[in-house]
Amino acid sequence: MGILLKNILAVLPENEKDVIKQTDIYIEGSRITGIGHSPEGFSAEKVIDGTDRLAIPGLINCHTHSYMAFMRNVADDLSFMDWLFGAIDPIEQKMTDEDTYWGACLAIIEMMKSGTTCFNDMQMNIHQTTRAVKESGMRAVICRGLVGSGDDEGGQMRLRQAFEERDAARDCERLSFMLGPHAPYTCDDAYMRIVSEEAKKNRMGIHVHLSESENEISQIKEKYGMSPIEMADRNGLFDVPAIAAHCVQITESDMDILKARNVSVVTNPASNMKLGNGFAPVPDMLEKGINVCLGTDGAASNNSLNLFHELSLLTLIHKGVRKTPQCVSAQEGFRIATLNGARALGLEKETGSLEEGKKADIAILDLNTPSLTPRNNLLAGLSYSANGSEVDTVIIDGKITMEGRKVLTLDEKLVYQKVNEIITRMGI
Amino acid sequence: MGILLKNILAVLPENEKDVIKQTDIYIEGSRITGIGHSPEGFSAEKVIDGTDRLAIPGLINCHTHSYMAFMRNVADDLSFMDWLFGAIDPIEQKMTDEDTYWGACLAIIEMMKSGTTCFNDMQMNIHQTTRAVKESGMRAVICRGLVGSGDDEGGQMRLRQAFEERDAARDCERLSFMLGPHAPYTCDDAYMRIVSEEAKKNRMGIHVHLSESENEISQIKEKYGMSPIEMADRNGLFDVPAIAAHCVQITESDMDILKARNVSVVTNPASNMKLGNGFAPVPDMLEKGINVCLGTDGAASNNSLNLFHELSLLTLIHKGVRKTPQCVSAQEGFRIATLNGARALGLEKETGSLEEGKKADIAILDLNTPSLTPRNNLLAGLSYSANGSEVDTVIIDGKITMEGRKVLTLDEKLVYQKVNEIITRMGI
Repeated sequence: MGILLKNILAVLPENEKDVIKQTDIYIEGSRITGIGHSPEGFSAEKVIDGTDRLAIPGLINCHTHSYMAFMRNVADDLSFMDWLFGAIDPIEQKMTDEDTYWGACLAIIEMMKSGTTCFNDMQMNIHQTTRAVKESGMRAVICRGLVGSGDDEGGQMRLRQAFEERDAARDCERLSFMLGPHAPYTCDDAYMRIVSEEAKKNRMGIHVHLSESENEISQIKEKYGMSPIEMADRNGLFDVPAIAAHCVQITESDMDILKARNVSVVTNPASNMKLGNGFAPVPDMLEKGINVCLGTDGAASNNSLNLFHELSLLTLIHKGVRKTPQCVSAQEGFRIATLNGARALGLEKETGSLEEGKKADIAILDLNTPSLTPRNNLLAGLSYSANGSEVDTVIIDGKITMEGRKVLTLDEKLVYQKVNEIITRMGI
Repeated sequence: MGILLKNILAVLPENEKDVIKQTDIYIEGSRITGIGHSPEGFSAEKVIDGTDRLAIPGLINCHTHSYMAFMRNVADDLSFMDWLFGAIDPIEQKMTDEDTYWGACLAIIEMMKSGTTCFNDMQMNIHQTTRAVKESGMRAVICRGLVGSGDDEGGQMRLRQAFEERDAARDCERLSFMLGPHAPYTCDDAYMRIVSEEAKKNRMGIHVHLSESENEISQIKEKYGMSPIEMADRNGLFDVPAIAAHCVQITESDMDILKARNVSVVTNPASNMKLGNGFAPVPDMLEKGINVCLGTDGAASNNSLNLFHELSLLTLIHKGVRKTPQCVSAQEGFRIATLNGARALGLEKETGSLEEGKKADIAILDLNTPSLTPRNNLLAGLSYSANGSEVDTVIIDGKITMEGRKVLTLDEKLVYQKVNEIITRMGI
């Protein structure tokens, strides 16, 4: 018993490129079991008519802080310090466990409604997020944010919690875990080493913020006489599969380290611009063969978790910065938002493209929309024209989680109400 | 008999700023006749419940080429020359009169569905656009694109057509007209003077492309020994109310001219990035007090006509370029996308803000959407979180043109079908 996407346009990988073809897609259990031909014994429980529709691999948001969705539009057009210490920190002080659950639910609804089927999350309070992920049917990689110093009991405690919370969520196959040493300015040398040793021992990846602001660069230079990338490298963070978020302020030699150590870089264009950090050298990283993937960062500094918006920024801004219209093409952008993300998360055999044997993580777009009319190069349309609202149906792990733009797994109206109650209670 | 927006959150102007207040808005005929209090003898033909909704002045797209909507995603990631001469020009050769009508209809649907209620259009074949504007209920300023030289009969003929077409459309109050001398590299000195004389004589404004690319700057420098802004100024283009599109490559002294001559500048961030032209110095222009407004340019170089997307670009990119998160705030951005646009088009007494006596040009957004939840600073939300699909209802000139996201004045499906037929016929 399965799902058949019948006679549908689909973005399919072919010789290292993505092409668009009319086909049938067969789903059994959690996986795609046939593309273009029916698997033996297939029986359709549900047929989705592909007329006027485009199936794409679900987008992968490689860097966010989901619980922060309720802090959307709370502090804008401010310096980083006023934003963080004047606005965000005081809210985090007042935040309850339950608030982070509703924040994560809101984030998941927003991501699902804009075609994201997997996200990589960093935060302090992960069990409420794993709860929201389990209920919603989303796929996620969860990273316990870790801050501390080598001789600090708090840092050890947070690390223990990371493993406890991972172990408590072992019943859900859609969840995986990494360790999240926050940044070189919040973890010292000794703590970074402890974390990377634990990651090696437990065969876990690392998700870390690196080289986001000019201020970080000078702080780390002063403290250690090196760049944040070098500091992370010498403390073993890149001895395991690692994802570095931001990498805006990096040198040629930083890039050589990232490439040599197989580090994936998550670029977050909206957040980097909004906080005044500038533009990551994405075209240079791509040229060096670094695996670049895409993230929104948290909704407090974006203020959206819509990866279609991020994809349009990614494929536009570098053309402007380099004055080169060929820079970061629609083809490259789409890979960055899908398969490169899966690679970064160690999930490239499971998701990131529509292929037989992979998990059925699929967004289905309505082509009877002005942004995707006419049907010229629809791959360009995904980067330059779509706004995410074209996504009509979402399938994750073989289950339909959204249909006709209605999320089936969470109560959208209840989530909006609960989140609005949080800000009323906090007096924001 | 009128329309009542009952108990609705609304963006209202107050002391040179925009604020959000809960209120009632009364519409009679084409105008807003009461805000917060019922006009005498008001009787509601239709009541729109404002619960969970936000009313904003319709956005104003100050620079586009609407017919080009069918060329969306036809030529991307190319140099300007390959784009224009390799792809766009050959399509324009094959284009029929009827094609431009369907292109304009598609553009209008896309704009309406993303909250735009007025646009400023430049093109060669304006009667098909005026037809689409009349049928759709949109508001528009139409500019006959003019190219030529002083001794060229073609240039004179195009100018005569501009007046004929204006006169033929006198029956529609939602339409107004400007003259559109294309650019300093397609109109010579003498032709520019002829056009500006005609504009003065006929009390019409001027809409012109200026200082878009580095190539234009060097071309005009070589031919005339001055900047495109100086060339336009000495030929009288700024003797009438003028709108200059792009102004990416401009100097301090160009800006002084624009300010002194009261020229409005339309910035087109997506198009300027996509064609590799860079970033206009919008923060500097704002500081000088130049009236900056917002445009999408045509869908062939954007590839979207969604002004919410453009507003997010406008309020993000300059923060990145200047490394200053306070640059082009949400407050400023919203004005740029609304009232500044009305000013540029000479329509500031008619549209651009929700005020008693102005035309009822209103977009109503659904707040039960993830992007606008929670209801923190919704003005920031309009710039940083909204993607345009939150627009549920559109009122233009006091008439409901879209309701529940369904355009009431044009047949959406027919337009999509016709536009898809054009590209099939052309073999794109």
